Amino acid sequence: MSAPGTIWGVGLGPGDPDLLSVKADRLLRGARHVAFFRKAGRQGQARRIVEGMLRADVTEIAMEYPVTTEIPLTDPRYNEILSAFYQTCTDRLCALSRAGEDVVIVCEGDPFFYGSFMHLHSRLRDHRPVQVVPAITGMSAAWTATDAPITWGDDILSTLMGTLPEDTLVEHMKRADALVIMKIGRNIEKIRRALRRAGRYDAAWLVEYASMPNQTVQRLSEAEDKITPYFSIIIVHGQGRRP
Amino acid sequence: MSAPGTIWGVGLGPGDPDLLSVKADRLLRGARHVAFFRKAGRQGQARRIVEGMLRADVTEIAMEYPVTTEIPLTDPRYNEILSAFYQTCTDRLCALSRAGEDVVIVCEGDPFFYGSFMHLHSRLRDHRPVQVVPAITGMSAAWTATDAPITWGDDILSTLMGTLPEDTLVEHMKRADALVIMKIGRNIEKIRRALRRAGRYDAAWLVEYASMPNQTVQRLSEAEDKITPYFSIIIVHGQGRRP
Ligand SMILES: C[S@@+](CC[C@H](N)C(=O)[O-])C[C@H]1O[C@@H](n2cnc3c(N)ncnc32)[C@H](O)[C@@H]1O
Ligand SMILES: C[S@@+](CC[C@H](N)C(=O)[O-])C[C@H]1O[C@@H](n2cnc3c(N)ncnc32)[C@H](O)[C@@H]1O
Repeated sequence: MSAPGTIWGVGLGPGDPDLLSVKADRLLRGARHVAFFRKAGRQGQARRIVEGMLRADVTEIAMEYPVTTEIPLTDPRYNEILSAFYQTCTDRLCALSRAGEDVVIVCEGDPFFYGSFMHLHSRLRDHRPVQVVPAITGMSAAWTATDAPITWGDDILSTLMGTLPEDTLVEHMKRADALVIMKIGRNIEKIRRALRRAGRYDAAWLVEYASMPNQTVQRLSEAEDKITPYFSIIIVHGQGRRP
Repeated sequence: MSAPGTIWGVGLGPGDPDLLSVKADRLLRGARHVAFFRKAGRQGQARRIVEGMLRADVTEIAMEYPVTTEIPLTDPRYNEILSAFYQTCTDRLCALSRAGEDVVIVCEGDPFFYGSFMHLHSRLRDHRPVQVVPAITGMSAAWTATDAPITWGDDILSTLMGTLPEDTLVEHMKRADALVIMKIGRNIEKIRRALRRAGRYDAAWLVEYASMPNQTVQRLSEAEDKITPYFSIIIVHGQGRRP
C-alpha cells in the first residue's frame, strides 16, 4: 500500500503568472495531476493562468459546473445540484489520493477567500491530507492597478459582494472607510445606486481584469452604461491618517 | 545623462520566503539597491525575509524609524518627526533614481495594505518612476493557518485595526460576518472586550507569526493573559452560504 497522496489547494493569484508564489510555481511545474473548475465549454481562468507551465505528461482534471446562472440562487435545486457536483469532484480526488497520487487543485486568487475550492476542502479535510497555499487576491491586484493605497492608519475596510441587498450595501458603504466590491456583473446598477445613496459614488474606481493583459482602470462615474465582466472589482480608497 | 531609475515597492508577503511572488523573487535577486524600514537596533522583518537572497554586491539602505511607540500618536510632534523622516528617505531614493539606479524597497505583506511604503509612494509618485508589486497579505496567511475559509457566499468581511476605539470595534464586529483584526499588541484587552460585547469572542482565533517558523494558532479564549507579538492577527470566520 502506498502512502496517501496530498490534495493541494493552490492559489494562483489574480491572473498574471508572474504573481504566482514561488511555492505555487514549483508545485504546478512538478504536478502529475492538475484539477480546476470551469464552466462547460470554457477554458476556465485558473487553467488559463497556468498555460504553458504544466508537465508534458500531466493529467488534467476539468471540474465542470453543472449550473451557474441558469437556476436562481434561491431555488432549492441550486444547492442540491451544486452539492452533488462537489461530492462527485471530491470522490474523484479522494480516489487519486488513496492511490498515492498528489493532486494540485488550482484556484483563482486566494483559495480561502470566496473560492470554489472551499466546497471541496470542507468535504475533504477530515478524510484526506489537504494542504492550502495562500495567494495574492484579486482585490490586491485591483488596488495596485489604481496606483493608490487602499487603507491608511486605522481605516476600516469592508469587502462586499454585489449580490447583497441594496440596503445592506448602503449601510456598510456608509460606515467603512475603504471599500472593495466584488461579484459585480448583473448587480452593477444596484451597486451604483447603493454607492450614490452612501455618498461614495464619485470616489469609486472600476478595475477590470486586474493584472491581466486586458486590465482597465477607470472612475466608475466615467464608466456609465458599461457591461462589466466577471473579473471586475470596485474600489473606494480609505483616506486615513498619514504623516 | 542616464535614463531615470525605477523605484520599486515590492511586497514580500507574510513571512515565508516561499510565498514571495515569482516577480518579487526575480526583482530581489537582481537588485543592486535594496531599501527597507526597521526599528533602530533591529534587523527588520522585511530584511529578514530576504536573508540569503540578495546579490553579493548589493547596497542595503536601512531606513530607521525615528519614533514608533515612544511618542503617542496624538502628539503633534509624532506626525512632524515621521513626516521629516519619510522626506529624508524620499530624497535619498530620488537621488539614486536620478543617477539612473533602480531601487527595490521591500515591504511586509502587500505594499498598499496598511504599509509604511505608502508614505514614500505618495511623496515619490509625481516625481519619479515608481512601480508597485502586490503580494500575499498577512491576513491571507493567517486564515490559511486556521485551516478554514474566511468568507463564503456573500459574507461581509471587515478589516479592523486594534487601535480603533472600543465602541467602533463593537459596532463593526456586530455587523460584519467575517472579521480580521490587525495591530493588536497593547490593544489586546480592548479587543477582547469588544469581541465579547459583540458576541464574537468564542469564535475568534489568534494567529501569531503567520507563515513564519514560529507560527501559532489558537482560540483567543484559550490564550488568556497572553502577550501578543506585533505579528498577530485575530480571525473570525464567516459562516455564509455553502452548498
Ligand atoms: C468567486 S470570487 C473569487 C475571489 C478570489 N478567490 C480572490 O482571492 O480574489 C470572484 C470575484 O473575484 C473578483 N476578482 C478576482 N480576481 C480578479 C481580477 N484579477 N480582476 C478583477 N476582479 C477579480 C471579481 O469580483 C469576481 O467576481
Ligand atoms: C502595518 S500592518 C502591515 C500589513 C501588511 N502590509 C500586510 O499586507 O499584511 C502590520 C500588521 O499586520 C499584521 N501582520 C502582517 N503580517 C503578519 C503575519 N505574517 N502574521 C501575523 N500578523 C501579521 C499584524 O497584525 C501587524 O500588526
